[in-house]
Amino acid sequence: MTGLVAEVLSGSRRAVARLLTLIENDRPGAADALAALYPHTGRAWIIGVTGAPGTGKSTLVSALAAAYRARGQQVGIIAVDPTSPFTGGAILGDRIRMRDLSGDSGVFIRSMATRGSLGGLARSARDAARVLDAAGFDVVMIETVGAGQNEVDIVRAAYTTLVVEAPGMGDEVQAIKAGILEIADLLILNKADRPGAAQTLRALRTMLELGHPTRSAGAVGHHGAGALRSGSDSAPIDGEMWLPPIVQTVASEGTGIDEVMTVIAQHRVFLSAAGRRARLEGGQIALEVRDRLREALLTRLLRQVSSESIDSMVERIQARQIDPGRAVESLLATVDL
Amino acid sequence: MTGLVAEVLSGSRRAVARLLTLIENDRPGAADALAALYPHTGRAWIIGVTGAPGTGKSTLVSALAAAYRARGQQVGIIAVDPTSPFTGGAILGDRIRMRDLSGDSGVFIRSMATRGSLGGLARSARDAARVLDAAGFDVVMIETVGAGQNEVDIVRAAYTTLVVEAPGMGDEVQAIKAGILEIADLLILNKADRPGAAQTLRALRTMLELGHPTRSAGAVGHHGAGALRSGSDSAPIDGEMWLPPIVQTVASEGTGIDEVMTVIAQHRVFLSAAGRRARLEGGQIALEVRDRLREALLTRLLRQVSSESIDSMVERIQARQIDPGRAVESLLATVDL
Repeated sequence: MTGLVAEVLSGSRRAVARLLTLIENDRPGAADALAALYPHTGRAWIIGVTGAPGTGKSTLVSALAAAYRARGQQVGIIAVDPTSPFTGGAILGDRIRMRDLSGDSGVFIRSMATRGSLGGLARSARDAARVLDAAGFDVVMIETVGAGQNEVDIVRAAYTTLVVEAPGMGDEVQAIKAGILEIADLLILNKADRPGAAQTLRALRTMLELGHPTRSAGAVGHHGAGALRSGSDSAPIDGEMWLPPIVQTVASEGTGIDEVMTVIAQHRVFLSAAGRRARLEGGQIALEVRDRLREALLTRLLRQVSSESIDSMVERIQARQIDPGRAVESLLATVDL
Repeated sequence: MTGLVAEVLSGSRRAVARLLTLIENDRPGAADALAALYPHTGRAWIIGVTGAPGTGKSTLVSALAAAYRARGQQVGIIAVDPTSPFTGGAILGDRIRMRDLSGDSGVFIRSMATRGSLGGLARSARDAARVLDAAGFDVVMIETVGAGQNEVDIVRAAYTTLVVEAPGMGDEVQAIKAGILEIADLLILNKADRPGAAQTLRALRTMLELGHPTRSAGAVGHHGAGALRSGSDSAPIDGEMWLPPIVQTVASEGTGIDEVMTVIAQHRVFLSAAGRRARLEGGQIALEVRDRLREALLTRLLRQVSSESIDSMVERIQARQIDPGRAVESLLATVDL
């Protein structure tokens, strides 16, 4: 394992790939390797990219990767699919990306799908980002499909989070996005040349105003919501606050990518000031510790409680002889952790 | 609390609403009330409804509720929004439903949004379904947006799970759905009068064939994939197997709703035979016990470990003096659970 760690630190793609497989399969040695690599992390900029299916996230991530490559940066991409809880199926977008970016050793792409365990995917993605960080990648993008709690957990490892939207999704979508918007440092309206873009843009602005009252009227009102512009909304920094700008892109044609890069850079500058990044990272680590404690405790418990006693408790619950809450209390009373 | 339990058992809507609020806010008394109600559960048929935003789930659930009402059944609806992790925002569809179904005391509708705790929403939804079950509702529908692990967890409380699709979502959607399809007992292609319906239908059939090899060629091939039919695919039961049929609906016009009702009834008959429902429920309870153990253990731990010692550990992790895995081990070494 020491050899593998040294190879990862030297930037070996093969070693990175091998370690990611160990992590994904929760193999012995993965934890030791992560521990050894951990002091070498904290240098890469971690970018989370999330949004509903069909918004063109993969294309956008490819375009951003190409733009970072053009600036001489090494780019790691972790494509997470939390919507395949049972099959662990391949991600379509990934194949497209492979075609566009393959052959460039400055880009490393890895797909991850759920393998059953709840929360395991968010952990694996976070650990994978650390491996890429330690291996010397300058930028690590964690891409995930969807807009639920799982996706929020997955992008929680990121410093800058992009939420991707596309025109032509119904009113329902707009109402739903109110929550996910709150994790966005940058909102991207991709496919901005499609019909309905102006309407979606208006809806997004309205929601941002609701979420960030200070940017209402004055801050947003002077922008026309008409034709496609490749450009962000108003200045994102207002004193102590970061106001998530909306950037319109047509990722398949490269339109708006420079603007996205600029806003990500602005956000990085914003976070670097006044100890903001340290606070963000501290909060992320606190959540991670809690999450790991929960898993470790369950593992300990399952070493002490026989599967027979759990099975018989399940039977009693099913027979309505005891309710699940009381059942768990009585199981806990028998163990000494 | 005893009074509240008695009122719930007598079917009081007001008592049900009060108890659901206690459950949602994790208030004292909620666990005791649930324990007291638990022996009275197991009579309602629990239906899970999930699917991407914009597929018309809410309209479909309303139409199904009306159809069950017309058959004299009491219907409870729990509308879960896991995509609002921070705001707990209202669900648009819910307002529409309220307008259609309000004034009918045989229908009870409750919206639930996340209030921060991971997994808490799935627990609340499951407990809410139990309250409605004990209160005498014949059918309880748990509706949730999305197609990720959280939604899988939420519908895990259901006996029959409907996955709703709509035409005109991109290829990416189709690839993604491979996982969610595996939880579907019934696939609904809603908005089946829209352009692209035939194409989406073909894609769904292809995926079902991949998932259920026995239904390939013969079982599916003889169905034309052309014009809108209000009807399911082939017979859903093949010996010991349930083959999820596809039903095309236009829920806003009531088209296909009778067919959906028929397939749900067939699935109920299927599950009632050969101990299938008991096995399904046993598996659900086993997962619930594991989930509850995990939460209870963390609560115990947090009673013993001071927030200062967790904070200082977070600081050491952030300073890269210790890695998160080792940090959790050393925290666990200090406690006696």
